[in-house]
Amino acid sequence: MTSARPPAMEDPVYAEAVVDLLGAVAYGEISAFERLAQDARMAPGLADKGELARMASVEYTHYARLCDYLTDLGADPVAAMEPFREAFDDFHARTASSDWLEGLVTAYVGDGLAADFYTEIAAFLDPETRTVIIESLRDAGNAEFVVDRVRAAIARDHRVAGRLALWGRRLMGEALTQAQRVAADRDALTALLTGGVDRPGLDLAAMGRLFTRLTENHTKRMENLGLDA
Amino acid sequence: MTSARPPAMEDPVYAEAVVDLLGAVAYGEISAFERLAQDARMAPGLADKGELARMASVEYTHYARLCDYLTDLGADPVAAMEPFREAFDDFHARTASSDWLEGLVTAYVGDGLAADFYTEIAAFLDPETRTVIIESLRDAGNAEFVVDRVRAAIARDHRVAGRLALWGRRLMGEALTQAQRVAADRDALTALLTGGVDRPGLDLAAMGRLFTRLTENHTKRMENLGLDA
Repeated sequence: MTSARPPAMEDPVYAEAVVDLLGAVAYGEISAFERLAQDARMAPGLADKGELARMASVEYTHYARLCDYLTDLGADPVAAMEPFREAFDDFHARTASSDWLEGLVTAYVGDGLAADFYTEIAAFLDPETRTVIIESLRDAGNAEFVVDRVRAAIARDHRVAGRLALWGRRLMGEALTQAQRVAADRDALTALLTGGVDRPGLDLAAMGRLFTRLTENHTKRMENLGLDA
Repeated sequence: MTSARPPAMEDPVYAEAVVDLLGAVAYGEISAFERLAQDARMAPGLADKGELARMASVEYTHYARLCDYLTDLGADPVAAMEPFREAFDDFHARTASSDWLEGLVTAYVGDGLAADFYTEIAAFLDPETRTVIIESLRDAGNAEFVVDRVRAAIARDHRVAGRLALWGRRLMGEALTQAQRVAADRDALTALLTGGVDRPGLDLAAMGRLFTRLTENHTKRMENLGLDA
């Protein structure tokens, strides 16, 4: 515990939720590192391979920053990540890319979805923690590169679009499945969103609107790629 | 071509050799990135996984710096790396780690050998290029971590030492095979070492001494790990 510990952390329920959230984001980043590095092997050329390696390297940098912040809070980063390991690993196992283009869509659509979701949650956090989370979600420059490559592939062979549209829907479905599993498991984290006796949160209607925003952004990303959501 | 181009690059044979060398080092770094990221998947725990991801990320940073420097010289990084692709890919295919400890030994022994070799060559380079090469070889902090993990594994089960000693010899053998193949293929690069009409180089005796230094350092690294070379 250092002077970096925000005063809000004195509330043990809040502190537990923040450690949970940071653990989830950190494990998401190291998983994204592994996935991007793995998908880099399928790159059609050295320039594309380097681009995925760059993205992976950015994810690692975010991961390291989150681990440092967890340590500053007096938490053990490995213990904080552990509860999220199974859900993230299952997500990645169920959505392992079978080719280069699927990997690109996951990098853009999956990361975008995660970033939207954590940004919504960040609104309920103390300023220090919020800043750390938001900075760790900063786009690694995936968007422009992926959109360019996927659109070019569709221009070469329009049948690619149907296959990748299905892939995008599968990503969304698997992400929701795992998110529900985490929510059912981690009461403190869920309470961050739904509020508590003396903390504001989202009621059912607000939860519905959040879900609508996530879905709309997902649809927009799919459209950017030239895909039906 | 920018103002960064060192005057020595006006000699076309030297320029060709430098582009070759930078291409070889850069491809080595991106290969190391891929290998470390791959081996991270075998990590026994999250902390170890993070450590390999960190090393991979450092290799990527070096790679990006070398590509930038190649571009500054007016060379195309992808074209510069291409001639070395097969030899490095073959090396990595022939030495794919079958477990976590083999991966660690490769990270330490393989990187160390490459760094020693390029450092020797760097002595024949113009100061700007030498600095770029030397900085890209800076140890990513692999040494201490690997020595600690390998020694601990041997302490737990001394039979591990025999297997890993064989592994280290295999790495050395495969590295020499591929280095010879590159030397036979790339005349300009080889001429950097052996010299030319108006450029000093190593005669056969000096070449022998270089080889002795490389072998001695390899033996020292194996000893650090608690292994017979």
